[in-house]
Amino acid sequence: MNRKIRIGIIGYGNLGKGVELALKQNKDMELIAVFTRRNPKSVIINSSNVPVVHIDDIDDYKEEIDVMILCGGSATDLPEQSPKFAKLFNIVDSFDNHKKVEEHFNTVDKAAQEGNKIAAISIGWDPGLFSMNRLLADSILPEGNNYTFWGKGVSQGHSDAIRRIEGVKDAVQYTIPIEEAIQEVRSGSNPDLSAGQKHIRECYVVVEENANKEEIEKAIKTMPNYFFDYNTIVHFVSEEELKKNHSSMPHGGFVIRTGKTGNGENKQLIEFSIKLGSNPEFTASVLVAYARAVYRLNKEGHKGAKTIFDIPISYTSPKSPKEIRREFL
Amino acid sequence: MNRKIRIGIIGYGNLGKGVELALKQNKDMELIAVFTRRNPKSVIINSSNVPVVHIDDIDDYKEEIDVMILCGGSATDLPEQSPKFAKLFNIVDSFDNHKKVEEHFNTVDKAAQEGNKIAAISIGWDPGLFSMNRLLADSILPEGNNYTFWGKGVSQGHSDAIRRIEGVKDAVQYTIPIEEAIQEVRSGSNPDLSAGQKHIRECYVVVEENANKEEIEKAIKTMPNYFFDYNTIVHFVSEEELKKNHSSMPHGGFVIRTGKTGNGENKQLIEFSIKLGSNPEFTASVLVAYARAVYRLNKEGHKGAKTIFDIPISYTSPKSPKEIRREFL
Repeated sequence: MNRKIRIGIIGYGNLGKGVELALKQNKDMELIAVFTRRNPKSVIINSSNVPVVHIDDIDDYKEEIDVMILCGGSATDLPEQSPKFAKLFNIVDSFDNHKKVEEHFNTVDKAAQEGNKIAAISIGWDPGLFSMNRLLADSILPEGNNYTFWGKGVSQGHSDAIRRIEGVKDAVQYTIPIEEAIQEVRSGSNPDLSAGQKHIRECYVVVEENANKEEIEKAIKTMPNYFFDYNTIVHFVSEEELKKNHSSMPHGGFVIRTGKTGNGENKQLIEFSIKLGSNPEFTASVLVAYARAVYRLNKEGHKGAKTIFDIPISYTSPKSPKEIRREFL
Repeated sequence: MNRKIRIGIIGYGNLGKGVELALKQNKDMELIAVFTRRNPKSVIINSSNVPVVHIDDIDDYKEEIDVMILCGGSATDLPEQSPKFAKLFNIVDSFDNHKKVEEHFNTVDKAAQEGNKIAAISIGWDPGLFSMNRLLADSILPEGNNYTFWGKGVSQGHSDAIRRIEGVKDAVQYTIPIEEAIQEVRSGSNPDLSAGQKHIRECYVVVEENANKEEIEKAIKTMPNYFFDYNTIVHFVSEEELKKNHSSMPHGGFVIRTGKTGNGENKQLIEFSIKLGSNPEFTASVLVAYARAVYRLNKEGHKGAKTIFDIPISYTSPKSPKEIRREFL
């Protein structure tokens, strides 16, 4: 057996913790160190035998780590970290800002080319598995339509938007796909659906003492982009209830393509869906599988930025080509 | 724009006809010729401007065709044809005999290596898209279980088995997934299910005059491997009814993986499913998308046998990497 693939984690939030746990399920990989911008002594990680290292000392690990998994956010962390570390390490990130993905790809590609490393960007489920299914279904059924539904799951961005309203102490917002819309799509009728026709937004809100609930509900429901175009439901709950019933991180979603073949008379449907007990742990599991792919691609001499479209599925598996054919084909 | 990818079809049954129709949906490809073992004059194809050529004259097309799509059967056609033609052409086949796939892979690989060609084998939906989803889900959720359900759809093998019974004139057999079993799997309870616990077999049978229906029904239901272990339902119908209601070729199926992450407390589910109005036309559409991939891989200098696990999704698309990232990521 080869030696294990040596992994580093940058950032120890929910995603970083998920990567740490996912690595324990993958016997061909091992966690070498967790890197943080905080005081390393203040970061207590799950794996007691693994060092927590300040990010400024990351260069010391250049020869010790095969793939660095970046677990920061897409707003400010990854645009800076991914190009910076792709020069030194093979990396995987979960960059999810669709509007800036081309810019991110280009800066990371340049860095990875310079460093002779592989950088897999935008890995996760959306972008990630969902993207892959959208593309493949488009290739197979060129005459058709793609639909993506998200949820039921917590949207961090929408929860944050509610928290910024005056008088709101805390909030959790669920994006919920509308079952009737899913059924309509599955029927092959190719409906033209806005995001608001595909999803409900359900909000659990804790308010400050003496806050004006009516005003807050109105502020939520009329918030442009975030809530105005949606059927939005607001529940006011106590702090205890929010903690008790709404602190887990489920998510899910559906990618559906309907198309026609032949002389247009035969309806065809391709559907990919996930239902997640823990969104960050699942995303982490995808990152880890693709860290294996990144390691192997680089070992074969490849370099540069890659997306999930560019990486053969076989590279994500610890099993041999022959085993894979026997077990999965 | 580059010139079109030039395609040949070998075998003009349901699958070959499906490929011919699928090519019309793909503007970057064109059909050059259909090859047959029959008298070419006896084969009337849909595309009136495309020649039908005897398979013995296939060598004449060595420089005229970029990818040959093999549309024969896995029992006798493909084991002979795929290695033979992989020396001369890039090929795609839909070889689906799971037990002989390793042997097929090896003989085809040898031929394709010799000819500096790419041969994609076992392309379709199962083997094919389902295989890919089984593998990817296994990579992402190493602690979990894969389940495959087939149907509702016609099983050619089971229909043929019924037709071989004395007194049977014609028959169509539907494999139907059991909804309760799918629900049980989706719940994450990891049930241990035999094929017979996952599927019902429903048979529509036309008998000869004066045939003993009771005997025939018994012969079907007790047939080892094919029906004995299943809940089998037999309907006797007229020849007209069979033709009218059971000559379309729908199919479908589900690949589900349930697993756990974290410290085993979070359930995760990945599901891929298809619902097909026409099984051969859908399989043909997959073959055509992978013919594009095969062409591009070979153009880049790759050679040898490949399965769906080895080919990046981006290669199946006519769109540029930049377009793909913008449109699908």
